[in-house]
Amino acid sequence: MADKTTYHFELEMKVRDYEVDYEGIVNNAVYLNYMEHTRHEFCENAGLSFAKMHESGIDPVLRRAEVDYIHPLRSGDRFISCLKMTREGARFIFVQAIYRLPDHQQILRARITVASLEHGKVGRGDALAEVFADYLK
Amino acid sequence: MADKTTYHFELEMKVRDYEVDYEGIVNNAVYLNYMEHTRHEFCENAGLSFAKMHESGIDPVLRRAEVDYIHPLRSGDRFISCLKMTREGARFIFVQAIYRLPDHQQILRARITVASLEHGKVGRGDALAEVFADYLK
Amino acid sequence: MADKTTYHFELEMKVRDYEVDYEGIVNNAVYLNYMEHTRHEFCENAGLSFAKMHESGIDPVLRRAEVDYIHPLRSGDRFISCLKMTREGARFIFVQAIYRLPDHQQILRARITVASLEHGKVGRGDALAEVFADYLK
Amino acid sequence: MADKTTYHFELEMKVRDYEVDYEGIVNNAVYLNYMEHTRHEFCENAGLSFAKMHESGIDPVLRRAEVDYIHPLRSGDRFISCLKMTREGARFIFVQAIYRLPDHQQILRARITVASLEHGKVGRGDALAEVFADYLK
Repeated sequence: MADKTTYHFELEMKVRDYEVDYEGIVNNAVYLNYMEHTRHEFCENAGLSFAKMHESGIDPVLRRAEVDYIHPLRSGDRFISCLKMTREGARFIFVQAIYRLPDHQQILRARITVASLEHGKVGRGDALAEVFADYLK
Repeated sequence: MADKTTYHFELEMKVRDYEVDYEGIVNNAVYLNYMEHTRHEFCENAGLSFAKMHESGIDPVLRRAEVDYIHPLRSGDRFISCLKMTREGARFIFVQAIYRLPDHQQILRARITVASLEHGKVGRGDALAEVFADYLK
Repeated sequence: MADKTTYHFELEMKVRDYEVDYEGIVNNAVYLNYMEHTRHEFCENAGLSFAKMHESGIDPVLRRAEVDYIHPLRSGDRFISCLKMTREGARFIFVQAIYRLPDHQQILRARITVASLEHGKVGRGDALAEVFADYLK
Repeated sequence: MADKTTYHFELEMKVRDYEVDYEGIVNNAVYLNYMEHTRHEFCENAGLSFAKMHESGIDPVLRRAEVDYIHPLRSGDRFISCLKMTREGARFIFVQAIYRLPDHQQILRARITVASLEHGKVGRGDALAEVFADYLK
């Protein structure tokens, strides 16, 4: 990767034509779908799906999204969606990026801030931190 | 497959959490997205992407969709989306089905009717039929 | 209306640009969103929102959708989405149509079949039928 | 408004049930759809729809989105989506916010940065600035 970030997780995906708008490029909101799916796959991969979290009373909620749109994806493009997770007190930060394949052109970078709702109230995030201890060192 | 249909194309996919609604099941409109994506991948695989068709003045358009919803998909489910293509005069029929993995529970079956717009007017479909000749025998 | 159907409910809406695909027309799955929203508004208007039904253990589920796509909607188009409800045994049928404004060009007609899940099992639909008694006469 | 910003445009909307996810709240990506629709309605209202811009070779493109998610919208909620436009050199900034009705609880605030592509190349934005001269004073 050009930006030297060491990511914790990578997911390969492909643009679907219904995600492309009248300008022929992926609509800006769809990238948030891609990034959410990447976070959920990362969590499931670490052993804790969002469905399981929800059942046990924990709901990670988005607090802030900062997204830089660098280059658009188009119909048929393949890409990898990357993620690195860090903790800042009660909040979790996901540094995310999307690169087009096969040329690794950077498409987007983002910083997503998530809080942990525990039974409907903002929690300290310790339950989540324990699950992701290997990544948060 | 339980229904013995011989499909021309199969695509494995996985439910993304943003496709699931407040009842915990995939929203009914999302299955049309899955089926469209399957048709487009089939066409691309056969050598003719929708983007290329559009550039050459051919736009396949949906005329009719008949969809039977048999069993819902849920968060995290993997599935295969299958397709068989036939021609009826100027129209192309896609018989489509979705099966959950790994148990092959049938989720949905559908019959999708597509006409071929050629430079904005309804065409006879001969250009498309030529590309898909191997399947339409 | 050109087709003389007497509808129970009409909802005016407007195409949003993110609903339009690379061909400049509303994507076929989006019409299912429009029709679902119309059914939900109809129910809420009759005194029973889907959220309330869900809380009381009743979940209407789609069993079959038959949709005829007659003419596409484009960016900026206003339209009315119409609905008529009937009952066939344990199933409810919604006859739906969309007309462009102001010229009343028919865009789509559909027949949507819904069953009533009561606490997770297929029910006889009597609870729903009571709420909609005025329409089902 | 609690935050005293003077907005150039307000649009009233209502949550549609298909926009709500398994947690019972509007999915984070959907707010970007709401905000895009608000920008497009604002432009159309000012006499320049995105479709017309696209035809004349001008495509506003998102460069950066900063979004603070303050409180979630739920099924059935009505809300107003507000917008103020400013210019910073070749870029246009949309300060946007969403408030729930009728209690004016703030749901979201955002700062959206847009560049003007003119015939595929980044432009100085003068054409757009002229159209919106009344707002950019």
